[in-house]
Amino acid sequence: MSPQVIPPALDRLIQDLTKLPGIGKKTAARLALNILRRPAGEARELAGALNDLHGSIQLCSSCFTFSESDPCAICGDPKRDPSLVCVVEQSGDLLAMEKAGVYLGHYHILHGVLAPMDGIGPTEIKIAELEARLTSGVVKEVFIATSSTVPGEATANYLIDRLQKKPVLLTRLACGIPMGMDIKYADRHTLARAIESRRKTR
Amino acid sequence: MSPQVIPPALDRLIQDLTKLPGIGKKTAARLALNILRRPAGEARELAGALNDLHGSIQLCSSCFTFSESDPCAICGDPKRDPSLVCVVEQSGDLLAMEKAGVYLGHYHILHGVLAPMDGIGPTEIKIAELEARLTSGVVKEVFIATSSTVPGEATANYLIDRLQKKPVLLTRLACGIPMGMDIKYADRHTLARAIESRRKTR
Repeated sequence: MSPQVIPPALDRLIQDLTKLPGIGKKTAARLALNILRRPAGEARELAGALNDLHGSIQLCSSCFTFSESDPCAICGDPKRDPSLVCVVEQSGDLLAMEKAGVYLGHYHILHGVLAPMDGIGPTEIKIAELEARLTSGVVKEVFIATSSTVPGEATANYLIDRLQKKPVLLTRLACGIPMGMDIKYADRHTLARAIESRRKTR
Repeated sequence: MSPQVIPPALDRLIQDLTKLPGIGKKTAARLALNILRRPAGEARELAGALNDLHGSIQLCSSCFTFSESDPCAICGDPKRDPSLVCVVEQSGDLLAMEKAGVYLGHYHILHGVLAPMDGIGPTEIKIAELEARLTSGVVKEVFIATSSTVPGEATANYLIDRLQKKPVLLTRLACGIPMGMDIKYADRHTLARAIESRRKTR
């Protein structure tokens, strides 16, 4: 394909869209052409949402989830139990947990899992911040809900080793979610049961 | 999930992304969270590309493809043969044809296919504009390359009926592309052979 066949403005959008996860060149072209066929107002609305995103969202200084307020809606909710902290990999996992509707504690977002091959060690994810939360004595239970994938399990095991001398109860999301499944894709009933039957690690 | 758990700015982006074809709620949330995790500059770049899109791109007044210039790069190219016009459904099909690298004529973009159930009749797509292009006598061959789907074939048959009294040769993209496949997804070699062996309709 001669490069000038694709208008530069369209090509720029296609290149930008291919940076998103799971969007290849053909999908990006299909999305870009679809956006082009629809009213300019819709493209501008999407552009506005993208422009406003980072400006209005920050990390909660307590649990490190994405939030427009600090503390976030969950950390600031007096009905939720601050003595119970659920550790998840990413904010998307928090959303999946909330969907199950049975968890009433706080969260801690690691922003990743241990992946030594990719250069992600304990200092690259928010583990020191989790330890710091335990010093005040408010937290009584750390409920580890990393995914049941190989890196998720490795991260859980590392956390159990590192936190076992702390005066907190360590629990782990129960069996119920199939091995190898990312918790974001678990259905809410399976996830609800797994939350209710979470088990002590020692 | 309690609605305030998702920050409004993130929720707005998720809602906007679900308007795109093939993007459901989970995919939109995954994309939005990924954009949020990456530098704000990348979101702004994508927003800029979206904002500039409709402003810099118009329809070529001859072939109706999306272009930053009028005539477009293809219609304005003196090396291409204006006596041969390839009729496709959408600009994405033009890109697929160009990728095959064997077609050296002009194009005509219908911007749709006949779909009576959806209220899309001959006046909703650029058929009158195609007829108007035939009055100057420059065009000697109309090469119909709609997809081999049911609406694509119906549109081709309608065009053949409507144009058969015109003093032009009517041809159709050859067998070679599997039935039911959208030409955007055909590999370039199959498409190249189908272009070379295009057949006369009568």
